[in-house]
Amino acid sequence: MSTRMFGEPIPRREDPRLLTGQGRYLDDLGRDALAAAFVRSPHAHARIIDIDVAGALDVEGLVAVYTWEDLPGRVGEPLPLLIPHPSLTHGRTAYPLARDVVRHVGEPVVMVVARDRYLAEDAAGMIRVEYEPLPPVVGIENAARADHLVHDDVPGNVGAVLLQETGDVAAAIEHAPHVLEFRLDIERSASTPLEGRGVYARWDADDESLRVYSSTQASTSVRAAIAARLGLPPGKVEVIAPDVGGGFGVKIVHPWPEEVLVPWAARLLGRELKWAEDRREHFVSAAHERGQVQHVKVGFDGAGRVLGLDVRILHDHGAYTPYGVIIPIVTSTQLLGPYKIGAYRAEVTSLYTNTVIVTPYRGAGRPQGVFCMERTMDRIADHLGLDRAEVREANFIGPDEFPYDQGLTFQDGRPLIYDSGDYPELLRKIKELIGWDGFAGVRSAAAAKGRRIGIGLGCYVEGTGVGPYEGGHVEIDSTGRVNVSTGLTSQGQGHQTVFAQIAATELGVPIEDVHVTTGDTRRFGYAVGTFASRAAVMSGNAIALASRKVREKALRIAAEALEADPRDLDITDGVVHVKGDPGSAIPLRTVAVLSNPLRYAFDEEAARATQFAVGGSPEDPPVASGDEPGLEGKDYYSPVRSTFAAGMHAAVVEIDPDTAEIHILRYAVVHDCGRLINPMVVEGQIHGGVAQGIGGALYERMEYDESGQLLNASFMDFLMPYATEIPRVETDHLETLSPLNPLGIKGAGEAGVIPVSAVIASAIEDATAIPIAKMPLSPAELFHLMSARERMSQRILS
Amino acid sequence: MSTRMFGEPIPRREDPRLLTGQGRYLDDLGRDALAAAFVRSPHAHARIIDIDVAGALDVEGLVAVYTWEDLPGRVGEPLPLLIPHPSLTHGRTAYPLARDVVRHVGEPVVMVVARDRYLAEDAAGMIRVEYEPLPPVVGIENAARADHLVHDDVPGNVGAVLLQETGDVAAAIEHAPHVLEFRLDIERSASTPLEGRGVYARWDADDESLRVYSSTQASTSVRAAIAARLGLPPGKVEVIAPDVGGGFGVKIVHPWPEEVLVPWAARLLGRELKWAEDRREHFVSAAHERGQVQHVKVGFDGAGRVLGLDVRILHDHGAYTPYGVIIPIVTSTQLLGPYKIGAYRAEVTSLYTNTVIVTPYRGAGRPQGVFCMERTMDRIADHLGLDRAEVREANFIGPDEFPYDQGLTFQDGRPLIYDSGDYPELLRKIKELIGWDGFAGVRSAAAAKGRRIGIGLGCYVEGTGVGPYEGGHVEIDSTGRVNVSTGLTSQGQGHQTVFAQIAATELGVPIEDVHVTTGDTRRFGYAVGTFASRAAVMSGNAIALASRKVREKALRIAAEALEADPRDLDITDGVVHVKGDPGSAIPLRTVAVLSNPLRYAFDEEAARATQFAVGGSPEDPPVASGDEPGLEGKDYYSPVRSTFAAGMHAAVVEIDPDTAEIHILRYAVVHDCGRLINPMVVEGQIHGGVAQGIGGALYERMEYDESGQLLNASFMDFLMPYATEIPRVETDHLETLSPLNPLGIKGAGEAGVIPVSAVIASAIEDATAIPIAKMPLSPAELFHLMSARERMSQRILS
Repeated sequence: MSTRMFGEPIPRREDPRLLTGQGRYLDDLGRDALAAAFVRSPHAHARIIDIDVAGALDVEGLVAVYTWEDLPGRVGEPLPLLIPHPSLTHGRTAYPLARDVVRHVGEPVVMVVARDRYLAEDAAGMIRVEYEPLPPVVGIENAARADHLVHDDVPGNVGAVLLQETGDVAAAIEHAPHVLEFRLDIERSASTPLEGRGVYARWDADDESLRVYSSTQASTSVRAAIAARLGLPPGKVEVIAPDVGGGFGVKIVHPWPEEVLVPWAARLLGRELKWAEDRREHFVSAAHERGQVQHVKVGFDGAGRVLGLDVRILHDHGAYTPYGVIIPIVTSTQLLGPYKIGAYRAEVTSLYTNTVIVTPYRGAGRPQGVFCMERTMDRIADHLGLDRAEVREANFIGPDEFPYDQGLTFQDGRPLIYDSGDYPELLRKIKELIGWDGFAGVRSAAAAKGRRIGIGLGCYVEGTGVGPYEGGHVEIDSTGRVNVSTGLTSQGQGHQTVFAQIAATELGVPIEDVHVTTGDTRRFGYAVGTFASRAAVMSGNAIALASRKVREKALRIAAEALEADPRDLDITDGVVHVKGDPGSAIPLRTVAVLSNPLRYAFDEEAARATQFAVGGSPEDPPVASGDEPGLEGKDYYSPVRSTFAAGMHAAVVEIDPDTAEIHILRYAVVHDCGRLINPMVVEGQIHGGVAQGIGGALYERMEYDESGQLLNASFMDFLMPYATEIPRVETDHLETLSPLNPLGIKGAGEAGVIPVSAVIASAIEDATAIPIAKMPLSPAELFHLMSARERMSQRILS
Repeated sequence: MSTRMFGEPIPRREDPRLLTGQGRYLDDLGRDALAAAFVRSPHAHARIIDIDVAGALDVEGLVAVYTWEDLPGRVGEPLPLLIPHPSLTHGRTAYPLARDVVRHVGEPVVMVVARDRYLAEDAAGMIRVEYEPLPPVVGIENAARADHLVHDDVPGNVGAVLLQETGDVAAAIEHAPHVLEFRLDIERSASTPLEGRGVYARWDADDESLRVYSSTQASTSVRAAIAARLGLPPGKVEVIAPDVGGGFGVKIVHPWPEEVLVPWAARLLGRELKWAEDRREHFVSAAHERGQVQHVKVGFDGAGRVLGLDVRILHDHGAYTPYGVIIPIVTSTQLLGPYKIGAYRAEVTSLYTNTVIVTPYRGAGRPQGVFCMERTMDRIADHLGLDRAEVREANFIGPDEFPYDQGLTFQDGRPLIYDSGDYPELLRKIKELIGWDGFAGVRSAAAAKGRRIGIGLGCYVEGTGVGPYEGGHVEIDSTGRVNVSTGLTSQGQGHQTVFAQIAATELGVPIEDVHVTTGDTRRFGYAVGTFASRAAVMSGNAIALASRKVREKALRIAAEALEADPRDLDITDGVVHVKGDPGSAIPLRTVAVLSNPLRYAFDEEAARATQFAVGGSPEDPPVASGDEPGLEGKDYYSPVRSTFAAGMHAAVVEIDPDTAEIHILRYAVVHDCGRLINPMVVEGQIHGGVAQGIGGALYERMEYDESGQLLNASFMDFLMPYATEIPRVETDHLETLSPLNPLGIKGAGEAGVIPVSAVIASAIEDATAIPIAKMPLSPAELFHLMSARERMSQRILS
């Protein structure tokens, strides 16, 4: 494989289009479509007594009003349980429109269709729903106390119970020289992509088919769900993810109620219909994540080596759990990170609350797990008076220990086995990059000037490239255009660039000739989706494998035309040529024409490029057995198990001694995602992830009051970091190739966000000497902690 | 292979829909589309001096007017030369809109787009085109005389010259004991399907793709042409043949000017646009066929065995020849029929005339060839005083002589080799069916009552199932629905029935579960098209091969689920079961769910049918190398050469001695198309073909005057037979399997029409003792011949 393209930091090919406003996002489509709006529950928990739509009927431009009673057959059934995991003992999903009980503020109750969105909102506003309020369950501790139930038939509000265990933790802790116990809290946050959800459907009566555009991370899953719910053959449902303005997990595979209702109504009405989520809707009716309470008990020796780790996790998965149980599964599975410890036990209790449902948000349970593990490492170091990096290193899996079996079950049900890595080297590089070893002096010098600065460190391992599969299709047409398609979707990750780099490198064509289509069921009908840092590994390898098939076919056909041995041929700049004889050459576009026995028909330019032949050898069929017309190939990549990327972050923070303002002075990342396809794209992913992680560490939280109202459901009230809050992220790479896939790559999409809360907590702790056990942490909260410590000190002194 | 479905005369599954008006033909689609109409040339040959569109601009609802000057780039180039055959020395195709010279009445000059067709026609009527008339060339003999030229740069009006030769014909004839020379004339006719051409295009700005519905016989070819002309990637052009109301060749693969112009304008305007041909347009701007003059010289021995046959064919291919040269190629290649003769030479001169272009019409040159060969057999019998059937039998290829190489080049450029047949047995059966041997007595008895009845016979061989390929795709979804698709199109042949029979039989599923899609590039992107009696052989075998792949995969997956050996399994009524143990069984719909590693997602019904498993074997990837998700398979059938169907027809006619009215008393067919998929469908094809053949023999002709005006361009003036003119067709079958394809089948679509003119001529000759050398033959013409003969007799007697 040539490395001419692969590995180069070429600028993202999609950016000129996206940055100049040429993107085609969901709401850019269907400008003439009817619009849907939803009446949503104002109560966190209530019984619906009556729905009076009369007021809406006078609104000019109203087309239809639907309540649950109007939904026929499977359209009205509760939405599918996406992950019927054995641990999910009481899976509960919502009806597309509430049937008789609403269980969170924002739950859809009535769907209104009108000529445009303004009229639809007007009509929705005229509909009166009478509710009988029920006691709401808000917050993990209320849920666990279970004074009230979210679902009558779910005792204790417990949806799932999961146990991960390796070794005898109780014995290990009992015999450990040192034992610590503490509690950690991670609050709710959410993905908050720039573009909310949205769906736009057209029923084609001529064709009896449905085309659905959805701002989704998994178009094939949306298709499967719509086909099943609407009773359509899947082949009659096309789902296309257009440009998608961020997903981060919230647009994963459910389907959403609106993804079923809008296509259903579009078909029923025979009209184009669109719904684009507004920001408040996104806050109260999409999904959240992160909320966990962790009770940690750890036993360790004098060198800081963990002998036993017992974690009890309470997880808040919201009002329904079509998929939310995946979060604590991931937390409990991947919590151990780069460490081998004596014994481990994680007990997860996943709880229903009367709040928005939980689904993955970039990092997907890993930030909580890393927060737990890295806080534990810092506590051990603090307890033993050891260097925090040393404690970590003492626990590392060695670079010669791969593949390393953690003895746990991964989220895909397979054994948790790390494929490759070099954690000591990552640590060496991050320490060097941040200046770890000399920091004590820096800290003291600053302190001497009244400045409180601290350094923090966070290490993580991330299972990426989870299966079961993705496929790739590569086709070279008679103009030389290389059409690459894969079923998974794009939400801005740079697939147009990196997938094209892979295909261009494998095929020996200029990258300008490569056109990538993602998330369009018309082009590729089987796919899983874009999440779990899996796109590059899964589709990247599938596209490489498909490209190799096409290359092989091209060489075979060209060899015949050039009367050469295929092994003597190479492809450069889209031209197949005899190695060392550039005059003996044939362009791939001509090979494409030759590949089809109909080559002389309909396109004279193509025909002119080849010699017309009436027949061929009379003893050979024009298409040989096992062959196909066309210069194209398809292949699937389906791994035995996931690859494991890893990384270490370090930060230097400064705390204002008076205001407790938290200022990040430096942020450094060393990342290992195997062979880099495009360092610039990987760095972009990491930088964005760090920014989102800083949001999670310091700013972003869902503020529910006790009645279940989300108090900060707008960008006026929900704090996200501006560019001013994000430091320059210093980045370095390590490349330990994955032995599991042909390209040796690992995923990188979520990496940036995973350890940030742990790193910032570590650094604040270092700066203030105040134990940090709860994230996010606002200056006000830190001020409160600092004041309390001061009062305590004064009390002790006085 | 079970024969439960295959071979059964099950009623056509499409008929309930089509016969109750549920069909979706081109003009049923796009009811809200803009409409196109064309200003067409009123002159057969003229130079365009000026086009004044001003008058149209005031028409309310007018959207656009286009002349050639408005067509950019390749849109304005002459249409593609579909078959750049070596014999076509001067191929000429038309501009989509006439550029400066019009060469036949009906040639499109201006395209008008308006809100509806009425307004478009109104506007077209207001456009003034100033012409300078040029001398028209009408009729084969005028064309050959070449006093005027159709194209300035085509000397002698000769577009193509073709020679087929085997043996030394001159020597064979010179040394033959008997020699005859005569001339035969076959007039122009046309396909005249119930539905004319039509095209409806939608540009999807959201998707930057074009969807085109065309009443076509080859949607993939239309796609290729549109993509090339409009400069779109083929993947962005979808072409769908909806229900098509007959094709018979006229809707073959050109593309037509309208098929380029309508999509181009739809894209330019960003509006849906439709054009549906009206009947007059079809007469003057679609295509015709048949017109040939044949000069025959034959040498034979006393037993009637042909020693040498020399045929000079003048062929009229109209004003342009994108494809028309295929007709005399077929005539000259397949003229020999079931006979082996000493030496053969056919010299074709294909001529331009200022008339509508020529493309295949059901039979495609074979009716002319059979007319020539069978008239020759009758002349020989008459000359030698032998029985006409005996003369034929004396020349037959024997049943033990297959494969039989005629020593000629077939239309696909490969050697003309017959695969199988039993001509003596066909003759025996047709003689028995019609009562040949006792007919002399019947004729005499009738004559004694003053009735003139006669019997005629015609034999033919038809190359069917021409390559290069077709493909089939078969998919079983999780509801048990079997989706079968193939790229070629349907025009009413019963593909929904016979392709379903093939798939149902191969898969062991009820035919009700099978859904067939044809001619939709979204479903199958590679295809040749439906013509040359190739659909059943090509796509039928491809579907069988694809079904076998699916069956094999289903058995493999089911074997795993049932813990059985795949060889111990069978499939009955859609259920895979252990042979002899019906309790050990799994439905195909469940196998389909099991075939996808995502089986638990999005469709609970499907998920419930299988046992949820989180993982699988940790050592196997979910999708094995070389495997794919889904229960589906694709395969291509690509034959080394064509199969050769054969048949013999016989008719008894009565001629009114006073009015010369021609009445067909009986019509019998014995047909051999190999293994019958569905005898009822084959008989339907034959009956329809015979009806069309009777039209060609007695009624249908294009009446051009010397200025090139088509005088009978409407169904008021162009005679087609009613049901009252068509006798009951008595049909019997012979099944000599083709050794070339897995199903042993041969094509049957054109068979019925091929020998009818020859048979009717033979019978009229038998009834009247007047040599028939020209078809069609009207009662008036026959009356004229009879009167002339009577005058001659009277002259001799007097």
